[in-house]
Amino acid sequence: MDKIKVGITQGDTNGVGYEVIFKAFEDPTMLELCTPVIYGSPKIATFHLKALGLNVNFSTVGSVSQAQDGRINLVDVVPDEIKIELGQESAEAGKAALLSLEAAVSDCKAGLLDVLVTAPINKHSIQSDIFHFPGHTEYLESCMGEGNKSMMILMQEGLRVALLTTHLPLSGVAAAVTEDAVVEKLQAIHGMLKRDFGITGPRIAVLSLNPHAGDQGLLGREEQDVLIPAMKKAEEQGVQSWGPYPSDGFFGNGTYRHFDAILAMYHDQGLAPFKALAMDGGVNYTAGLPVVRTSPDHGTAYDIAGKNQASPNSFIQAVYAAIDIYRNRQFYDASHANPLGKLYADKKEEGR
Amino acid sequence: MDKIKVGITQGDTNGVGYEVIFKAFEDPTMLELCTPVIYGSPKIATFHLKALGLNVNFSTVGSVSQAQDGRINLVDVVPDEIKIELGQESAEAGKAALLSLEAAVSDCKAGLLDVLVTAPINKHSIQSDIFHFPGHTEYLESCMGEGNKSMMILMQEGLRVALLTTHLPLSGVAAAVTEDAVVEKLQAIHGMLKRDFGITGPRIAVLSLNPHAGDQGLLGREEQDVLIPAMKKAEEQGVQSWGPYPSDGFFGNGTYRHFDAILAMYHDQGLAPFKALAMDGGVNYTAGLPVVRTSPDHGTAYDIAGKNQASPNSFIQAVYAAIDIYRNRQFYDASHANPLGKLYADKKEEGR
Repeated sequence: MDKIKVGITQGDTNGVGYEVIFKAFEDPTMLELCTPVIYGSPKIATFHLKALGLNVNFSTVGSVSQAQDGRINLVDVVPDEIKIELGQESAEAGKAALLSLEAAVSDCKAGLLDVLVTAPINKHSIQSDIFHFPGHTEYLESCMGEGNKSMMILMQEGLRVALLTTHLPLSGVAAAVTEDAVVEKLQAIHGMLKRDFGITGPRIAVLSLNPHAGDQGLLGREEQDVLIPAMKKAEEQGVQSWGPYPSDGFFGNGTYRHFDAILAMYHDQGLAPFKALAMDGGVNYTAGLPVVRTSPDHGTAYDIAGKNQASPNSFIQAVYAAIDIYRNRQFYDASHANPLGKLYADKKEEGR
Repeated sequence: MDKIKVGITQGDTNGVGYEVIFKAFEDPTMLELCTPVIYGSPKIATFHLKALGLNVNFSTVGSVSQAQDGRINLVDVVPDEIKIELGQESAEAGKAALLSLEAAVSDCKAGLLDVLVTAPINKHSIQSDIFHFPGHTEYLESCMGEGNKSMMILMQEGLRVALLTTHLPLSGVAAAVTEDAVVEKLQAIHGMLKRDFGITGPRIAVLSLNPHAGDQGLLGREEQDVLIPAMKKAEEQGVQSWGPYPSDGFFGNGTYRHFDAILAMYHDQGLAPFKALAMDGGVNYTAGLPVVRTSPDHGTAYDIAGKNQASPNSFIQAVYAAIDIYRNRQFYDASHANPLGKLYADKKEEGR
């Protein structure tokens, strides 16, 4: 069996990207799990290793087809004249990040990589004619989505948070909570939990839009008028969900542990408690794309760039998660392609 | 020096109120710190102790003036015919909760109690002609506020969260974020940190209304148009604040540890991450009232009522917090009443 090929983008070259990548693959057992292929520049990589005082070997290759198992492979896709200014926002670092991302995406689309793990970018300096998106998620949906909608999932171990609305001013959130949007999102989460995580009877929790879940209509009616009808409609289609739960008690008393995924209504409702709980081990997963893409849930961390203070934990978890999801998909697709196989897989799942 | 007299309401008599109260004062060292005076019923208290299998002694007294140091005092204020139905919502339990609250508040107003700690009520069953409020906070403001606004603070150790808006549908939050409201709240928090917590140069963090703090206006303009001008205005009045911070990163990377208090824009933004972090040790403090009032941050917990499973930790922390705040206020008021004393207090604080 071939090792899983993990395409890795270098991210913003003035941040902690190379630091977390090299610290992750410093451990030789990581190379037994997968074959990393970094899209970047040997010159920039060496600059970072020196600044950090790290002694990690990598092999520069001309293309992904030359990548070898047991090594940290680096495909040279960035011109040598890019200047590194550790901890600074710069147009050059943004350009370098985009070159790496474009090359990795191109190899993903050509089927030369199995999964993609991206190091953090600076969402301002990367903007250009090619990249005019709020972040990786939207860019990848546009160039690899094949018309499917992507979905950002923040996860750590069994905790998986999806958002109904993402990059929206708070004043627009209530109007965007519609029955169709909720049903569609519940279906997408259900499908993801089955195929990507191998969960047969997924349990999804829905958070309320209003405080105290609207307190029987006193603090808002969206729970009765939108969320509960949407959850009923989804259930008629075989998608089970529970709630709507007030988000404070839900995270405070551990209710979240009973569910395979959580649908939050808006950005901060899902991400503030998630990040409070996940600390440095959170992973950002872009569900819904043909290719599995994960990333650490931290940013460029300019304040500690080049100081050897960044924890690689979130990046390592992102690699693990990408590999797990890739394998779950292979098993799911294989077992559902062949009627007898499917029967076997279902029986096996029932017996768990 | 007299021991601090802690007035304690029994809360909803079908919940875990008596359990956490008795478990808290079971430890004799608690009676060295303060003299507890429970407002309730000896019959109901005995019922709970039997159901829980707890062996704790208390002294029934006719009024607070008969309360003795070194004992758990119980003032009998509830008629004997109240029926207990553990774990059930009932009008009788709501009525019993209100009788206890009214008696304790009356003794607070008469200056017979130093601080008030309330056990959880059921916000539905307690409603009546007298109690027509969303919760304790609003009721206490109305009958003890003397025209001042109260402010709900959720706290655990150094983490203190205040809310700009509280029980409001999410669709109304953005419109309620006004410059005047933010300035007024920052002033109130600043004053509270100085007088109630003895902090000389309080550091207040402001959370952003929009995701990513509005991302330079792309995801909402309230940060530039309302929050930042309000923070500047408050600073001109000597109230320092920092932010506005996106709430997810703020709680995720530990930024909150650098501040004495946090102003969240709405209920779930502050309380979901707070409760995720505080687990079972959170305390609800009603700032701004002449009398110090705290409570545990859990509810009636009907599901575990009478099962001896409730943790008294949050209740114990509520008692500690009330005592600390009472003492801080005494010190602050004494040192500010006398010009020389004030000078001494300021010098002492500067030297810390």
